[in-house]
Amino acid sequence: MDADAKKTVLRKITYGLYVLTSSAGEELAAGTVNWLSQASFAPPLVMVGVKADSGVHALIERSRAFAVNILAAGQKDLASAFFRPTEVGNGDINGFAYEPGPETGAPLLTDLPGWFEARVTGAVPGGDHTVYVAEVISVGLRDAEARSLEMGSTGWFYGG
Amino acid sequence: MDADAKKTVLRKITYGLYVLTSSAGEELAAGTVNWLSQASFAPPLVMVGVKADSGVHALIERSRAFAVNILAAGQKDLASAFFRPTEVGNGDINGFAYEPGPETGAPLLTDLPGWFEARVTGAVPGGDHTVYVAEVISVGLRDAEARSLEMGSTGWFYGG
Repeated sequence: MDADAKKTVLRKITYGLYVLTSSAGEELAAGTVNWLSQASFAPPLVMVGVKADSGVHALIERSRAFAVNILAAGQKDLASAFFRPTEVGNGDINGFAYEPGPETGAPLLTDLPGWFEARVTGAVPGGDHTVYVAEVISVGLRDAEARSLEMGSTGWFYGG
Repeated sequence: MDADAKKTVLRKITYGLYVLTSSAGEELAAGTVNWLSQASFAPPLVMVGVKADSGVHALIERSRAFAVNILAAGQKDLASAFFRPTEVGNGDINGFAYEPGPETGAPLLTDLPGWFEARVTGAVPGGDHTVYVAEVISVGLRDAEARSLEMGSTGWFYGG
């Protein structure tokens, strides 16, 4: 395979941006991801690719659960803040307020327009990211009208 | 879970549109999908949710391989043509010219700007769609400059 062609073709896949979080014991972790999609209507499943050496991956392995926080158009700075290692403050994570998810304790970022929690039902390891398939078990909506942050609008790429 | 909130939140996930194809024996199948993402850099993996009762699903189960054809902005009509059951003509599929993929024989639509072929390395059944994880084994680029068709621009939804 031509490496440049592979990169160019795979970067034509369309993505949004999300803050993925998890909680296990006293620990919290959060990171911005884009490899996320729904994967079934009934039951409601999602699939997400999570970097195998990341803090969120470590906590999902322990808790088998996570939350997805959906970034709104205009929240590029917030997406950027979660490229950094997780720092938990007094009621904030990487400088942004959160509350614990009702089902899993995973951080829900209160500035973001919507979130869902999910429990892992299947996993495919083997790449540099693990594919988790997970059932959506709770959802919350803070701003039904918000448009989502699209990768294409940021100038960033993660793929290829 | 509130059904309306679940639908609204899950529809905030950002998607592109792709024609997924497969070949097994003499049979070909094709269908438009949006639940697709990269899932690893090394090896290069993708993940795709494929409707369990679809023609493409039946052929992927037999061949363990598929091709993804990336739709360009402006190709909404072409996306729509592959919502219909597959009809193979003389050198065309659902009215559009194709050539067989070099590695898998899966149809590559010649009007589309790029494609890749992939071999299934893992699967998670259980929902109304199966999650296939697959390694990208060949790629082709017909128009490096083409912008991709985004679900948000079509007025369609598939998710929620």
